[in-house]
Amino acid sequence: MTAPDYGRAFALWRARAPQWQSYTHHAFVEGLRTGDLSRARFLHYLRQDYVFLIHFARAWALAAAKADTLAELRAASATVQALVHVEMPLHVQVCAAAGIDAATLEATEEAPANLAYTRYVLEAGYSGDFLDLMAALAPCVLGYGEIGARLAGSGGPYADWIDTYAGPDYQALCRDVGAMIDGALLHRLGPGWADLPRFDRLTQHYSTATRLEVGFWQMGPASA
Amino acid sequence: MTAPDYGRAFALWRARAPQWQSYTHHAFVEGLRTGDLSRARFLHYLRQDYVFLIHFARAWALAAAKADTLAELRAASATVQALVHVEMPLHVQVCAAAGIDAATLEATEEAPANLAYTRYVLEAGYSGDFLDLMAALAPCVLGYGEIGARLAGSGGPYADWIDTYAGPDYQALCRDVGAMIDGALLHRLGPGWADLPRFDRLTQHYSTATRLEVGFWQMGPASA
Amino acid sequence: MTAPDYGRAFALWRARAPQWQSYTHHAFVEGLRTGDLSRARFLHYLRQDYVFLIHFARAWALAAAKADTLAELRAASATVQALVHVEMPLHVQVCAAAGIDAATLEATEEAPANLAYTRYVLEAGYSGDFLDLMAALAPCVLGYGEIGARLAGSGGPYADWIDTYAGPDYQALCRDVGAMIDGALLHRLGPGWADLPRFDRLTQHYSTATRLEVGFWQMGPASA
Amino acid sequence: MTAPDYGRAFALWRARAPQWQSYTHHAFVEGLRTGDLSRARFLHYLRQDYVFLIHFARAWALAAAKADTLAELRAASATVQALVHVEMPLHVQVCAAAGIDAATLEATEEAPANLAYTRYVLEAGYSGDFLDLMAALAPCVLGYGEIGARLAGSGGPYADWIDTYAGPDYQALCRDVGAMIDGALLHRLGPGWADLPRFDRLTQHYSTATRLEVGFWQMGPASA
Repeated sequence: MTAPDYGRAFALWRARAPQWQSYTHHAFVEGLRTGDLSRARFLHYLRQDYVFLIHFARAWALAAAKADTLAELRAASATVQALVHVEMPLHVQVCAAAGIDAATLEATEEAPANLAYTRYVLEAGYSGDFLDLMAALAPCVLGYGEIGARLAGSGGPYADWIDTYAGPDYQALCRDVGAMIDGALLHRLGPGWADLPRFDRLTQHYSTATRLEVGFWQMGPASA
Repeated sequence: MTAPDYGRAFALWRARAPQWQSYTHHAFVEGLRTGDLSRARFLHYLRQDYVFLIHFARAWALAAAKADTLAELRAASATVQALVHVEMPLHVQVCAAAGIDAATLEATEEAPANLAYTRYVLEAGYSGDFLDLMAALAPCVLGYGEIGARLAGSGGPYADWIDTYAGPDYQALCRDVGAMIDGALLHRLGPGWADLPRFDRLTQHYSTATRLEVGFWQMGPASA
Repeated sequence: MTAPDYGRAFALWRARAPQWQSYTHHAFVEGLRTGDLSRARFLHYLRQDYVFLIHFARAWALAAAKADTLAELRAASATVQALVHVEMPLHVQVCAAAGIDAATLEATEEAPANLAYTRYVLEAGYSGDFLDLMAALAPCVLGYGEIGARLAGSGGPYADWIDTYAGPDYQALCRDVGAMIDGALLHRLGPGWADLPRFDRLTQHYSTATRLEVGFWQMGPASA
Repeated sequence: MTAPDYGRAFALWRARAPQWQSYTHHAFVEGLRTGDLSRARFLHYLRQDYVFLIHFARAWALAAAKADTLAELRAASATVQALVHVEMPLHVQVCAAAGIDAATLEATEEAPANLAYTRYVLEAGYSGDFLDLMAALAPCVLGYGEIGARLAGSGGPYADWIDTYAGPDYQALCRDVGAMIDGALLHRLGPGWADLPRFDRLTQHYSTATRLEVGFWQMGPASA
């Protein structure tokens, strides 16, 4: 399968991140596709992902604070709003259906691999600028899009999860975010952005964040 | 007139900010009340206020990034969303009605007094934490509420402006923000927060930001 | 052995961090003491520690930026200066003696456990204030002091490493940092700081950072 | 007189900042040159400048936190150290000689024009990256160098002040900072940096900061 079209920066970053395949074809992902992933590992993942979403929303809020144009400010703000008022309540609901109540969810102890990724993203954003933040956020947003697109129609016990990321809403979001990133690069660095050292630095952020996404899949309960 | 009830921190800060009266009863404000404020100064203010709102939205986005609880994250995110998708378009509309088109509005050069206030707020937030940011934001949010409440029903050429801040929506927002601040203080500092040195430091932020608000009213076109 | 006296906050944090023992008595540390730690693991650690020091210096620089008093600014600035102009050149020298040249050292790929800790510290500092940063930095600065004090005089192949942290200079630094932290707490929160929710939040930072320190010792070359 | 040679970015920024002449040839500066500046205004300036230096040191500390290379980290750290351990004690001494004791100096209320500049610089740095911070810091560091070079040998009551900035140490610092900025641009943006939109954005920071420097000279005691 070819890569989905989420813009030019994504295509370049994806091709240059050594662990992109390890991330998007991780055993955890294959387990979601085939249905062989244990329920325990999935629930462990869901709980960690809930904590992840809080910090991810904070990272998008930071992007809004660091926006250089009104369009960037609006896009980042809308993403925070969607994460906080749509994604997170949905997550609470899915967990509740799986028998994890809100209190248990809130009490989740953040795993090191989870901490590593979200703090890396936030710190890249705080120490760098809007572009650094986007490059570090992109593997999550767009990687889940690519995984969703590839797993579409797999069915099985994880069909709901797959459909969320394979669905038209999430795919449109990926195209929008990809376009915003390309626009942000053009706006700041001009048409030759792909050839500047600045872009290499962003590629490093993308690669490191991809490495940390592999670690995220790796997490699992002791007994899984 | 007594102070509006926007919570306990507001009451304490308000009583301790030497320039609170200079800010809330500034000649500019009295000009809005009596209608004697020149149109030129009002339009100058509106244009600066548009630039202000952009940075104010960024400051609330930073608050979302620095939130310590989900409730804080949600409240800050909703405020950014309201500023970006409601307040700012409204501002564009008001300016358009006054003959200032969007391009002119966008091209406004930020006055030093405007820069001073927004950068003070943002920097207090970046260098400090959520509380520092709230203390520096509060004079604007709550001061406009107090001014609106006092000027309610004044009529005249600036009745629309007055009604916005006197109206139930804005007054409810002030009560919510005031309650969130009291809650944030309690959550971090316990019930004795008003007696801690930390609160004195926050009061300094509030006072300095109030001083800078006076400067904001002071701004005016060369010819006004 | 009793805990070294690095002040009151340290004593409280140390007693409340569930993994303090796992960190300060880690097999890696015991290997340094007995001399049984493999050379390969030690060199792997040294290389990672070099990258660590860069980000640690950045974190202390952030502390200087976030200082609230001249004394805090001076202390943090002096620490950055010591890290950059003393510790890091020393590290380069030790590595060179071990056959790792400067170019190899610079080319070290940061391990996830390394990333996790430094980015956690930096992000705690950016999103919080000076105290959050101190609480997240403390397990490293003071933990190495405690380990050094306990291992003092062990001799063996790692005697140089041990002596650095057991020596009077490093022990004095730990007492100074501990005293600065106690002073920073008193300055902001008053004499009852240990009983405020704010201190619980700082204890969480300390505990999480301690957990990540355990992960740091855990790192090792594939072949170790 | 031609501009001093502090590198290429400086030459370009200087030529494009509309108020560069207003800043470097301000009546205050001319008063320092001719000796006609009133003592009261000079002392007022000195006291504000002391507060300024604290925030300026914090800004350089932030630069160290945001450095991308060891060379940048070292240079920024050395500057903080120089400001905190050399410049500021010197300032205290000069003020003491002028009859302003340390306690009075510490108690100085920061003027709005002072706040405006330092918070603008810090916020540009927090919201942007190392380059944004450098562009906002440069008008102060390099402008004082240019003023010093132009006023060298003027003698009169302000000869000490003039000599500090005209002297070989400060002039060397200006060349070093200018070279570091050129290096930072090359490192991130490649040899064509001057033609990228990114450089225009940096020029905006430089121009705005120059505008705020004009405001800094403008400050004065009510009675001056």
